[in-house]
Order: sequence, then C-alpha cells, then structure tokens
Amino acid sequence: MRIRINDVFILTMAEGDDCPVRGDILIEGDTITKLSPEIVEEADEVIEGGGRFVAMPGLINAHQHTPMSLLKGFSDDLKLMDWLERKMLPAEARMTPEDIYWGAKLSMAEMIKSGTTAFADMYIHMNEIATAIDEVGMRASLTRGLVFLEDDGGKRLAEALELVDRWHGKAEGRITTMLGPHAPYTCPPEPLSRVIGMAEEMKLPVHIHLAETKEEIAKIREQYNQTPAEYLYNLGLFEKAHVLLAHSVHLNRRDIGYLKGMRGGVSHNPVSNLKLGCGIAPVTEMIKQGITVGLGTDGSGSATTVDMFEEIKAATWLQKLDYGDPTVLPAGQALRMATSEGAKLLNIAHQAGTLEVGKKADLILIDMNKPHLQPLHNAESLLAYSVNGADVDTTIVNGRVLMRNRKLTTIDEEELMKQVSVRSRRIVDGI
Amino acid sequence: MRIRINDVFILTMAEGDDCPVRGDILIEGDTITKLSPEIVEEADEVIEGGGRFVAMPGLINAHQHTPMSLLKGFSDDLKLMDWLERKMLPAEARMTPEDIYWGAKLSMAEMIKSGTTAFADMYIHMNEIATAIDEVGMRASLTRGLVFLEDDGGKRLAEALELVDRWHGKAEGRITTMLGPHAPYTCPPEPLSRVIGMAEEMKLPVHIHLAETKEEIAKIREQYNQTPAEYLYNLGLFEKAHVLLAHSVHLNRRDIGYLKGMRGGVSHNPVSNLKLGCGIAPVTEMIKQGITVGLGTDGSGSATTVDMFEEIKAATWLQKLDYGDPTVLPAGQALRMATSEGAKLLNIAHQAGTLEVGKKADLILIDMNKPHLQPLHNAESLLAYSVNGADVDTTIVNGRVLMRNRKLTTIDEEELMKQVSVRSRRIVDGI
Repeated sequence: MRIRINDVFILTMAEGDDCPVRGDILIEGDTITKLSPEIVEEADEVIEGGGRFVAMPGLINAHQHTPMSLLKGFSDDLKLMDWLERKMLPAEARMTPEDIYWGAKLSMAEMIKSGTTAFADMYIHMNEIATAIDEVGMRASLTRGLVFLEDDGGKRLAEALELVDRWHGKAEGRITTMLGPHAPYTCPPEPLSRVIGMAEEMKLPVHIHLAETKEEIAKIREQYNQTPAEYLYNLGLFEKAHVLLAHSVHLNRRDIGYLKGMRGGVSHNPVSNLKLGCGIAPVTEMIKQGITVGLGTDGSGSATTVDMFEEIKAATWLQKLDYGDPTVLPAGQALRMATSEGAKLLNIAHQAGTLEVGKKADLILIDMNKPHLQPLHNAESLLAYSVNGADVDTTIVNGRVLMRNRKLTTIDEEELMKQVSVRSRRIVDGI
Repeated sequence: MRIRINDVFILTMAEGDDCPVRGDILIEGDTITKLSPEIVEEADEVIEGGGRFVAMPGLINAHQHTPMSLLKGFSDDLKLMDWLERKMLPAEARMTPEDIYWGAKLSMAEMIKSGTTAFADMYIHMNEIATAIDEVGMRASLTRGLVFLEDDGGKRLAEALELVDRWHGKAEGRITTMLGPHAPYTCPPEPLSRVIGMAEEMKLPVHIHLAETKEEIAKIREQYNQTPAEYLYNLGLFEKAHVLLAHSVHLNRRDIGYLKGMRGGVSHNPVSNLKLGCGIAPVTEMIKQGITVGLGTDGSGSATTVDMFEEIKAATWLQKLDYGDPTVLPAGQALRMATSEGAKLLNIAHQAGTLEVGKKADLILIDMNKPHLQPLHNAESLLAYSVNGADVDTTIVNGRVLMRNRKLTTIDEEELMKQVSVRSRRIVDGI
C-alpha cells in the first residue's frame, strides 16, 4: 500500500527544522519513504493537500487512563478525595471488562479526532484495551497499574506480566508494554524494589506517577523521611530502567537533580494539574537540566478532555505565568514536547515523533484554511496557540489512515455512541 | 420572520437554572417569544435539533481589539515591550482603514464560528469596524481608544464623539458605544477627568484597561503615588459612569474595595494574561465582593485566539490553581461569566446574556453528538471543560442566523481569506 500526500506544508519537528516546507510525502507500507518538494511516484491513494494543510508528526499523549472517558464530566469541581472516593472508585468498581473495551475505544475516537497517534496507558483489564487498540490501529505503550496496599498485589503483578507476554510487540509492532507500579504512596519499598528488578531484567520501561500533589509529598516524608523522587532514586529506579514519570509537579531542586541523566523522562499533564488544583510543574527547570519532558492529558475522568492541543497551550501558558515572562517555553518547544519528546518517553523515538524518511508513518494533516488559522504569519505559533483538535483533517498511524476528512475509518461512531450512552448510564446510576 | 428550533437541550443561564431542559424555542423577529417543551406554531425556518444540540446564550467577549486578527501569530513569545515596540506598533501604523475593516471582519468570522454573539471593541478607525458589524450582524459595544501622551488627544476625542453620534443605537440597535480612555498610564488626570465628566453627562459607559502588568503598578505609583485602581477611584470614575475594566490583574485588597458597588465590572482575559506572563487576576475575591466579572479574549495580536471557550477553561483553571482547590470557580460559574455577566458589562443585560422570553434572540447551538462530548453526565461540565469553538453548529444574533451547520451566512469566507492573505502580508512586510 502506497499513499502519496500532495502539496502540504511539512513541519518535520526534527532537530533544527523550525519552518514548514511546502512539498509532498510518500508512505510505503507503514513507513515514510520520501519527503520532497515534488514526488511523482504512483500511489494507491493520493491525498490532495492543495496547499491548505500542515503535515506534522502525530501527537503523543504520554499519560492516559483511556477507559475513564466513560466518566468524563461526572465528577468535576470536587475536592480530590471526594472526586476519588465518592465518585471515581465506586464508578470504576462497576466497570466490566466490556465497559473498559468501549471506554478505551471512546478515548481513541477522541484522540484520533484531535490528532493523537500514540499514547501511554495505565489501567486495569489491559487485555480489553489492547484488543481495542489492535482493532483501531493506534500506537500505544500499555501498563497494568500495580498497587500494593490492600494485599501483596500478586494477582495484579501476574496480570501485568501476562500483558507483557501477550501484547509486547504485537499489533504490527504498534503495541509495546511497560511495568506500572502506580506511585510511591501505593508501592512500599519491598514490592517496588521487586518490580524495578523485574523491569531491569526484562529490559522493560517503568511508568509511574510521581509528586502529583502536596499531600503525596507530606505522606512520603512521614513514611520514609524522603521526597517521592528521592524514594524512587534510592530504590535505584532511574539507574535500572527507562522511566516514564507522570506529573512530577512538586519537585524541588534536589529532586530534579535525581532525575538528571535518566532514560525516559517526565509526562507533564498541565490541564489535569490545573483542574485538580495541583500546581505548576517545574518544566522549564527540568528541560534546562536536560530532562526530557513530554505532554499527557491524564484520564478524562479528571481532565475532561484528551485534546493534546489543549495541553500544548496550557503547558506554554503555565511556564510563562510561572516566570512572568512571555518568552519562556515558546511555541516550537511546546510542539516538540507533544511530538518528538513524547516519543522518547514512550521509547519509540526510533519510530515516531518526527517526520523523517525511514520512520513509521504516524502523522496528521491540519486544515489551516479557516478564519481562526489565517493569516499564516507563523505556523508554529498558530499550531501551538490557535489550533484545536477539530482542525485535524486526517490522522495516519503506521501508514494506515484512521481518519480522513474528519471521518473515522476504523471505528463505527454510531455504534460507539450507543454503547457509551447505555454503559455510562449504568455505571454511574445512583452514585 | 419566525424561527422555530425543535428538540434541543435548553440551558438558559438565567439565575438558578443549572440544568438544561429539553424543549423548543420560538423566535419572532429579533426576540425570543417562547421557550417550551413543545411549540407548535408555524415558522418560516425550522431548525431540527433532534436531541443532539445544547442551546445556550451566545457568548459575550467583553474585551477585544478586533482588527488585530490580521497580526495573530506575528509576534508571539516576545517580551511585552519588544512585542509592542518592535512588532505591533510598526505593523499597526501601516494598517489602512480598509485593513481595519477586513481585520474586524476576520475577527467576527472567528467569533461567530466559535459561538460569540456580542463583543466590546476598542480600537481606531471605528467607523470601518461599525460598518463591518452592521453588515455582518453581530452585537457590539464600540469604543475609540483615547491616549493623551504625545498630544492633547483632541483629534482622537473628536473621533470618539463622532462614533457615538453616528453609531450609538444603530444597526437595528445592535451597536452601542462607550468612551474609551485607554489606561491610567496613557491618560493623565486632567484629560481623564474631562472624559469621565463627558461620560457622566452623556450617560455613556467607559471602557478602560486597568492594572494589566506589574510595570503599570510601578509607573502609576511613581507618577501619582497611587495604585491604578485608586487613581481611577479618586477621579470619581466608578461613581460617575458604568465602567468596563479590562484585565484588573494586579489589584490588592484595597483596590478591590474601590471597585465594590461599581456599575459594570471587570473583563477577565485569562489567555492574554497567561500568554503575556502578566499574572492571575483575583477573580474569586472580586466575585466574593459582589463585583461583576465577565470574560474577554483581548486582541488576537496577543491571545492568538478569540475562542471564548478557551477563556472559560483558562478562567476556571487559573482560580483552581491559585487556590490549590478544584472546587473554586466551578463550570456553571465560568459559563455565566461568558454569558450573563458579560451582558452586564456591556450594559445589555436587558437584551442578552440569558435565554428568556422577551430578550433578543442571541443564542448558539452546540453539537454534543461527538465522541469528546459523550457521555453526557453533566452538560455544564462538558460545556466548560470539553467543548471548543468548533463544536458550535449554529449562531443566531438578534433573530438572524449568522452561521448554520458551520457555514457563515453573512460573510463571504473565500473573499475574506483572500483579502486577509494579501493585506496581512503587506502590513508585516519587512518588520
């Protein structure tokens, strides 16, 4: 299968490529094989850009809990503990494996429609999520969340290993896996050490929440007389594995020092951090220290949106606010966080995150021929500050068109909406 | 002309109406004449909602500089003074009256397409802007910006009075006017007093910038040994006129006291404040003190977007962040800021801001039948946190449909794009 995309503004997001260049793109199979001012090769499918589209790498959502889409808007504007204990936990307890499947699919429909091509997911019933991903065609890094509080976590760990065994490298290589110890406050030293050891041995990355709230800082201080980052550092996590840290809001200067030189990096989730009143992550300082920072939405149970263009805006806004300086975290850097940097976090930078010959064809076309995206003085500015998810016209993952002209090709939207409506009502009924 | 809208979820935004009710809407001429579970009256035009739309009051953008749309993305990520002196001022100096007309039209196309029905505008060449509004069909409150630094401002003041004389109450009553002394730091006491006196005498509201940056606070302290709010208070502004204050970021507790009991209120412009690194306005405290707070985008030269749904999100996020508390400024309150409260600021609350029988028919229909807006656990949450401008299907102002199924009815989009492209290139060429 060959796809030729004609006459688009190509923003590769590769190091040093800041300006979009007008040209064509050739995709053969799952791979980008040519980027050039003019391509004449025959193709099975030709997408005519007509000079109105920007082509850029698909966005990478580095922290998701996809099935929570079924609970979006269900418990906004509540205190974190009310949100969790009175709403989220009772609702989640009612979710069947089939609900999980449909919830993941709903999140994927939203993500494809807003330009996301790959994501990192941490949840339960991962087999259902992997099945949905296999069908839908997105790229993902999956993690079964591990909590060791109520019991020894053995059943969960077994499921985590089953996920790795069954799905790592599957779905044409679109699915990879990580180990997912949930957070410092849900993983005591002994089991967490064990998981870190397994990650090292199996050469698996680790996806873990870190320092999301002030309460977490207080709790870990009380339990271990350490900061959460220090706790992970002292267990050898950053030395032994590629690590995807979610949130990392409350890090002090020494904490950032512990992260220096780590493989992987931080998923900054500004909308979730704002909406839950958590705070501003020290993104600028982390980047200055050479730490890779990508962007994620968190689950839509908290963020109420999985539109990564909202995260791009919010990320730049928060740093400018924090420093009182509009030059901090400029447009291009925010776009890199959502693309090339996200790919590094998911450990797929050799495949995705930039548009380059030889990389997988994970890309989106954005329709700039709209009043709010004209005049085109500066494409990066418009992409970071003016575009929203609905401006994405076409989404391609692994050389397969998942959306064209805003129509999903691998998800039956009508059936999806029906399932979502019935299931979500049942799940929250009476809560 | 009669329009009947069938089977939509009606969110009136009237005091105490928090939940949308399914029903029909009848519009006769420019007025809402019926809101009811079922309306059987014949109509010239019938819009079939089919249970997929939320009908709500059109959004009110309380602070705009519409022609700056021609400069959007032209000078992002710069220091405020570089932005102003190296980019904005040279570019603005090149704008012809015809450019102003097309820039205003571009902003209106963006606003209509993202659900805004009324706005407050402060700029130059107001006659061209008023002409564009007259043609396009939006509702607006217009102000000729008054600066008294380089000269006595006599020419500008004459233009301001000409605007009032020529356009106040015109365009079927859609256009009203205010007086627009630009800001404390551009209006010394003597001329500002004079303008305030004129506003009192002519019973005209005043639109003025206040306390946008820390630099302004320092400057007014140095010049007058007062805060900017104190400066305006001491000149009797709040006593003598209905006042629309833009920004009001840096107010201390005493400043908020000066504003208590004022007619009018504050246009909070969170995206602009974030993007320029200005700070977080004390919105929660102002509301607590009974001050009316609406929302505005500021000109798209700074904000790069005039999508009011971005302002709604940003407003809630910033207050939650500022207080470290997710319950602060909940969804419904943010939606009121963008509707009923904005109407009070523009002094058009008797006409707009809520859906009520007898009010002007300024309303929008939002298409909720999309993956990112389902399931519908809570309409207000989805409207505040998940909807973006592109979800608006239909925009009606003064009983006239300005957009239906996302097609503009009063603006030729193709011609607009052509004009914008040529003019914007000429304006910034070589700057």
